Amino acid sequence: MKQETGDFSLPRPLVVRAVSRALAEDLGTAGDITTDATILAGKHAHATFGARKSGIIAGLDVARAAFHALDKSVTFTPLVKDGDSIDEGTVVARVSGNARALLTAERVALNFLCHMSGVATLTRKYVDKVAGTRAHILDTRKTTPGLRAFEKYAVRCGGGRNHRHGLFDAVLIKDNHIVAAGGVGPAIEAAREHAGHMVKIEVEVTSLIELHAALQHEVDVVMLDNMSLDLLREAVRRVGPKALTEASGGVSLETVRAIAETGVDFISVGALTHSAPILDLGLDFEPL
Amino acid sequence: MKQETGDFSLPRPLVVRAVSRALAEDLGTAGDITTDATILAGKHAHATFGARKSGIIAGLDVARAAFHALDKSVTFTPLVKDGDSIDEGTVVARVSGNARALLTAERVALNFLCHMSGVATLTRKYVDKVAGTRAHILDTRKTTPGLRAFEKYAVRCGGGRNHRHGLFDAVLIKDNHIVAAGGVGPAIEAAREHAGHMVKIEVEVTSLIELHAALQHEVDVVMLDNMSLDLLREAVRRVGPKALTEASGGVSLETVRAIAETGVDFISVGALTHSAPILDLGLDFEPL
Amino acid sequence: MKQETGDFSLPRPLVVRAVSRALAEDLGTAGDITTDATILAGKHAHATFGARKSGIIAGLDVARAAFHALDKSVTFTPLVKDGDSIDEGTVVARVSGNARALLTAERVALNFLCHMSGVATLTRKYVDKVAGTRAHILDTRKTTPGLRAFEKYAVRCGGGRNHRHGLFDAVLIKDNHIVAAGGVGPAIEAAREHAGHMVKIEVEVTSLIELHAALQHEVDVVMLDNMSLDLLREAVRRVGPKALTEASGGVSLETVRAIAETGVDFISVGALTHSAPILDLGLDFEPL
Amino acid sequence: MKQETGDFSLPRPLVVRAVSRALAEDLGTAGDITTDATILAGKHAHATFGARKSGIIAGLDVARAAFHALDKSVTFTPLVKDGDSIDEGTVVARVSGNARALLTAERVALNFLCHMSGVATLTRKYVDKVAGTRAHILDTRKTTPGLRAFEKYAVRCGGGRNHRHGLFDAVLIKDNHIVAAGGVGPAIEAAREHAGHMVKIEVEVTSLIELHAALQHEVDVVMLDNMSLDLLREAVRRVGPKALTEASGGVSLETVRAIAETGVDFISVGALTHSAPILDLGLDFEPL
Amino acid sequence: MKQETGDFSLPRPLVVRAVSRALAEDLGTAGDITTDATILAGKHAHATFGARKSGIIAGLDVARAAFHALDKSVTFTPLVKDGDSIDEGTVVARVSGNARALLTAERVALNFLCHMSGVATLTRKYVDKVAGTRAHILDTRKTTPGLRAFEKYAVRCGGGRNHRHGLFDAVLIKDNHIVAAGGVGPAIEAAREHAGHMVKIEVEVTSLIELHAALQHEVDVVMLDNMSLDLLREAVRRVGPKALTEASGGVSLETVRAIAETGVDFISVGALTHSAPILDLGLDFEPL
Amino acid sequence: MKQETGDFSLPRPLVVRAVSRALAEDLGTAGDITTDATILAGKHAHATFGARKSGIIAGLDVARAAFHALDKSVTFTPLVKDGDSIDEGTVVARVSGNARALLTAERVALNFLCHMSGVATLTRKYVDKVAGTRAHILDTRKTTPGLRAFEKYAVRCGGGRNHRHGLFDAVLIKDNHIVAAGGVGPAIEAAREHAGHMVKIEVEVTSLIELHAALQHEVDVVMLDNMSLDLLREAVRRVGPKALTEASGGVSLETVRAIAETGVDFISVGALTHSAPILDLGLDFEPL
Repeated sequence: MKQETGDFSLPRPLVVRAVSRALAEDLGTAGDITTDATILAGKHAHATFGARKSGIIAGLDVARAAFHALDKSVTFTPLVKDGDSIDEGTVVARVSGNARALLTAERVALNFLCHMSGVATLTRKYVDKVAGTRAHILDTRKTTPGLRAFEKYAVRCGGGRNHRHGLFDAVLIKDNHIVAAGGVGPAIEAAREHAGHMVKIEVEVTSLIELHAALQHEVDVVMLDNMSLDLLREAVRRVGPKALTEASGGVSLETVRAIAETGVDFISVGALTHSAPILDLGLDFEPL
Repeated sequence: MKQETGDFSLPRPLVVRAVSRALAEDLGTAGDITTDATILAGKHAHATFGARKSGIIAGLDVARAAFHALDKSVTFTPLVKDGDSIDEGTVVARVSGNARALLTAERVALNFLCHMSGVATLTRKYVDKVAGTRAHILDTRKTTPGLRAFEKYAVRCGGGRNHRHGLFDAVLIKDNHIVAAGGVGPAIEAAREHAGHMVKIEVEVTSLIELHAALQHEVDVVMLDNMSLDLLREAVRRVGPKALTEASGGVSLETVRAIAETGVDFISVGALTHSAPILDLGLDFEPL
Repeated sequence: MKQETGDFSLPRPLVVRAVSRALAEDLGTAGDITTDATILAGKHAHATFGARKSGIIAGLDVARAAFHALDKSVTFTPLVKDGDSIDEGTVVARVSGNARALLTAERVALNFLCHMSGVATLTRKYVDKVAGTRAHILDTRKTTPGLRAFEKYAVRCGGGRNHRHGLFDAVLIKDNHIVAAGGVGPAIEAAREHAGHMVKIEVEVTSLIELHAALQHEVDVVMLDNMSLDLLREAVRRVGPKALTEASGGVSLETVRAIAETGVDFISVGALTHSAPILDLGLDFEPL
Repeated sequence: MKQETGDFSLPRPLVVRAVSRALAEDLGTAGDITTDATILAGKHAHATFGARKSGIIAGLDVARAAFHALDKSVTFTPLVKDGDSIDEGTVVARVSGNARALLTAERVALNFLCHMSGVATLTRKYVDKVAGTRAHILDTRKTTPGLRAFEKYAVRCGGGRNHRHGLFDAVLIKDNHIVAAGGVGPAIEAAREHAGHMVKIEVEVTSLIELHAALQHEVDVVMLDNMSLDLLREAVRRVGPKALTEASGGVSLETVRAIAETGVDFISVGALTHSAPILDLGLDFEPL
Repeated sequence: MKQETGDFSLPRPLVVRAVSRALAEDLGTAGDITTDATILAGKHAHATFGARKSGIIAGLDVARAAFHALDKSVTFTPLVKDGDSIDEGTVVARVSGNARALLTAERVALNFLCHMSGVATLTRKYVDKVAGTRAHILDTRKTTPGLRAFEKYAVRCGGGRNHRHGLFDAVLIKDNHIVAAGGVGPAIEAAREHAGHMVKIEVEVTSLIELHAALQHEVDVVMLDNMSLDLLREAVRRVGPKALTEASGGVSLETVRAIAETGVDFISVGALTHSAPILDLGLDFEPL
Repeated sequence: MKQETGDFSLPRPLVVRAVSRALAEDLGTAGDITTDATILAGKHAHATFGARKSGIIAGLDVARAAFHALDKSVTFTPLVKDGDSIDEGTVVARVSGNARALLTAERVALNFLCHMSGVATLTRKYVDKVAGTRAHILDTRKTTPGLRAFEKYAVRCGGGRNHRHGLFDAVLIKDNHIVAAGGVGPAIEAAREHAGHMVKIEVEVTSLIELHAALQHEVDVVMLDNMSLDLLREAVRRVGPKALTEASGGVSLETVRAIAETGVDFISVGALTHSAPILDLGLDFEPL
């Protein structure tokens, strides 16, 4: 299937708030003292965002918002779309307008764009590894504080799928919940009773015995945590059509293909959001 | 090593705000629907933060703040200090109190602690590589939007030094500023005139010719950008005691030692904050 | 009644923020000028929250938070639990502490408590009407701006269930989505593809023809909108075990029983949150 | 004089903030997942706001702001003015622009418009009941937390008058203040002394004895609380031109006319803001 | 003088927010780098707030809040009350606790305390000048942006009275309003009609002709703007008991007595809040 | 070189936030009730900002932002630049647009403009006094809470220089730090070690003995606090080229020239920001 990224949008008020916060962090109360001292207030400039490495782009709208927070008349023209795979050297966007605004917002725009593209790029590597299997790559709640929406959007740009967005939109029953509820059955029933019919329920199991107990109840997804490949394969077989299956724990670019070949529906990878290196992009100015 | 990390404190209002924002992101409007459905409101619990890998700890106060934002009566007892080097398996803190509060704040606490410790751990690797040279490892402004203070604190915990905190607290004159100001001399003079006597001035140069021009003026630091080792060595020699020297560009764990041996005072590494993988820590509950 | 309300908690940071906002609204910049002029700063007082009518209580924690925002030493002792059914005249809580704090926070505490209890009380009336049928009463997104979490919590206190919390946590495909996507099938497939496996999908239909089309695809819930009782009954029969059914449109206390008896699983009622009158409660002071 | 509603404006910064808050509540971090999955990003749409019932309109500017918060290029054209009385079926506004923006902001726009119009509509019913008497209908501080400005504006649109906006802009001396101050006289004098000459003073009385005591002092308004019609009539007679009179307590659409005919100047009705059902309006899209 | 200042309280949420904002301004993202580098984290300290000049104290609660925002265990003991007149050398408060917290919050605490006490001190000078006349000293809306509540509180501490707090709590009809409304009569009637019965109405006049026109209508206060002493005296005579009178314009410590002796009820002085020099106070530490 | 003020810019997000806060303070929840009652919603107006006194202008962009926060279509045309010296009677800007917006934003615009211009005007007086000496006039951290960026900008407009912006961007070692660190040497070394190489270090001394101790270490600036002129002169001589010198304490318009003639590089003046009277400007409307 041809992933149609760019179809997705980040809620605009979220973007405006996050960009404003990042600019406040970089500008402090004194502003860009280097630029103010050396660049005339009325000067114009042109620059291009260029990729120093190949990868997947994500965050163009956020980069645009960084410039517009300083000067609404800046023109930002993307030349690719979020989710596009680009080669080293690709020009991904042009920006032109007040030179001070461009120089002052440059780092904030790049910090978002490089981080989000880094998440998308790492995601795509995992997605490519499992190509041809039934498995989809999922993110987790192990995200950078304050940037969850941006990182989950980037995961989608990379061809991954989103797990729940927070504690609020799906039930994930883990060992502590099971113990406290008096068993996996009571835990699932309590969740059914309280969490609402629009909410899916997933249960984490670490052995076939726990899996057996969980399958006595109606669950939407079973998380098979830290299982060996053999155990995974057997677990997937036993679940059959009763639920979706998610493998988690110990997933790396080296292991993901073998895990996918056990037949699981989903493989969740914390590293997508907690350990992705940036995609290196830079802003190149035409001579001022 | 004599660096006394842990001496440093993050501004408390910053911590409170960032933790509150991260909790809002994870709790949404419905809260932790799994925990609310399965754990009795009055239940107590005990848990420990354990290191799954060895590394440097940073962010214990932030983790504590995550629990206290939900319940001020939770007890959080650190067993190590920020900046300590810990082995895999080390218990870094104990936490006890209301079971719902512990389970609900767990991920936010870990997201901060693992990310900050990841930055500190990567920093320490660079710091160790240059041990015995005069070089100090520096961070950059290539930080995760919204988390700059937390990442710069983590760099200090790892034994690194902080470059400027933003556009507001030091001058860094780059090529565009030089061109716009009509040369490196006018740029430096404009900065001296406008930026204030409490502000240090650094100039970026990429060749010996640019270096020569910059050294005709009083600058505090010279950034030697993307130079070969030979060029770096010669540049350091020419700068002599006139300014501090900072190498930047193309720095990796493989190259940093050789760069340090050129005699530069500082080596700045964007990867410390833009590409550090997390340090893996987990929260282990005593049976509920 | 077996519903264990009170088990549920409102996210504490949400409560603190909403109460702070409401106090700012009532206090302005000059504060409570009547109380400041007439009550000595150090005076103590005791008061009780009393029900002027019978109904269901919701919002006791929010009322407590209103006092604590002004003075953390105020003692607030609930005598009933959220979700309890109370008679006219019941004392639902005692509060004691600084007299100025009590008088100044009184109206904010009551505005939350009366509104939330009003929602819970109306919900219970609907819930009682459908007792013995399989139908559950649902809320909608037709909530008071800024108070959705509080109103959805109150619906749970009243024995109702929550529909989705927002546009973000479940898919609800309506006519415009279907037309734009080129039919109910493409719309459902697009949602499956993009919205994630942890997200449930509901489709709104208004006729048996539309229902037939929707049932060719895998959906979790079918919303049967504005159907006559006969049509509803037939629709429920045709859906069978393939999906859950939700009746919406034209629901009132007069009609809800008949609707429930068609066999639908859920009946959504916008009035629960957009048109519930308050439950009248007052704060009675012991003579100062 | 013919009340010219629509002359009044809500402070624009208040509107922007409240709308932004409501959108954040509805969009969460994932946004409108149904619309993003099914509607192309560039699609345009046209729709009309139609009244499902007759009533009084209030909140058109707030509805417009909801769309503009997502997309400034949306065109919103009101066809009536706030305060206008409209029949069932009236088209009150047209909106056109990006289809996603229209669908995503629809519910927030309607939630404000329906709630505010509901308050205006209920107010007008009370106002009409007392037509021909000297009495004006007043709101109270029993408003929905966070929405006081919006509800008090809606009351004006309905032909009512605003009582004080909060604890800060007028003195209202109640029984507790009187007891604490050592009598109605000392309470009034304390208020005169401390509250400032631009602030009006109202005293609540529940008997002719209390009224007599209050009238020994200079007060602007006397609140006659929970009095029988006979008592009210006598109280109004005794106050004469010395102060304005306000009846409060036990006011309903059934009782308000008789109360007005006692000759009071004002009748305050908490239900206007705490128990008004919405006015039902919907957004009808032209086929996409 | 019988004015019991100190009876008044600043709304606590306002204080918390303003102090938090001021600390953020002073701490930035790096915090107090001098104190962190030189003072051990666990060290305790004791210090006293001393007056370098005589004057009136205002803002003790705000100073306390500055320390508590950093460390709730700091002890702050006021030795005088807001509104007290103190001599040079007076110790106004003691503070003890964590040395870092004391040093880091010192400047924010002093900036509030010195500014507020400066406003109170200047106010008292005006109040003393008019002692024995009927005139009260009023503030205006010419306040420092963001600090209006603090400055109006300080004016009360100095023995002055507050004019309206903003555009929202009283009507003040000036020349432009009169021209736009078609005369002073229509302007007053429009205000009566729209602004609500709890709102006082003041009209600004600059000549006896304008005064005559205004007095044909019911107004609460007449502002006599920029009139000569003779004109003021005549205007006060003509107003008689029909309204309160306020003199404004050209008021200084030199002129205020003569103005008061014309018999006006109030004299408003913009300088109280827009041009008051600070009262010099300092924080003296016991040897660490 | 001729100081080119106006070259400097205030960070735009700071301006937007501060103006929004000030408008909220002035408008409350009811808005400008006088203007709403008397001025038709669609009316246009023209007005000019005129100087009632001579002085230095600062804050034109902030004034513009006040109008634009209410109505983006208002036209604001500055006729002078920030930093310009203007005579009494000068028209500094024209503004035209919706009459309500102009009248409602007038006071907020003036409160910023008059305060900032007051700071700039007082600064210029000090700057003029020291003309021809080597001394520059500095501000301090004794600023009005919440307005530091605005006041420091105004100081630059007046020809002064900025000292550090907060506790975060430079080290200033005072007596308590020295005592706690165990001497001036350990204090300076600790600061060098911890504060970073981009941060300048200043030490406060009050005697030649302390100065001697400080000069044994590398410091950037020496603050000579509260020294007599003779002592200052000797201190400056002893420091020589080893560091910059700053005189502080007891500086007034009467004493500043003599202090400057001792040869110090900088003279810091708290009064610039904590005790500057406003520059009186007004907004004059063309007849409506």
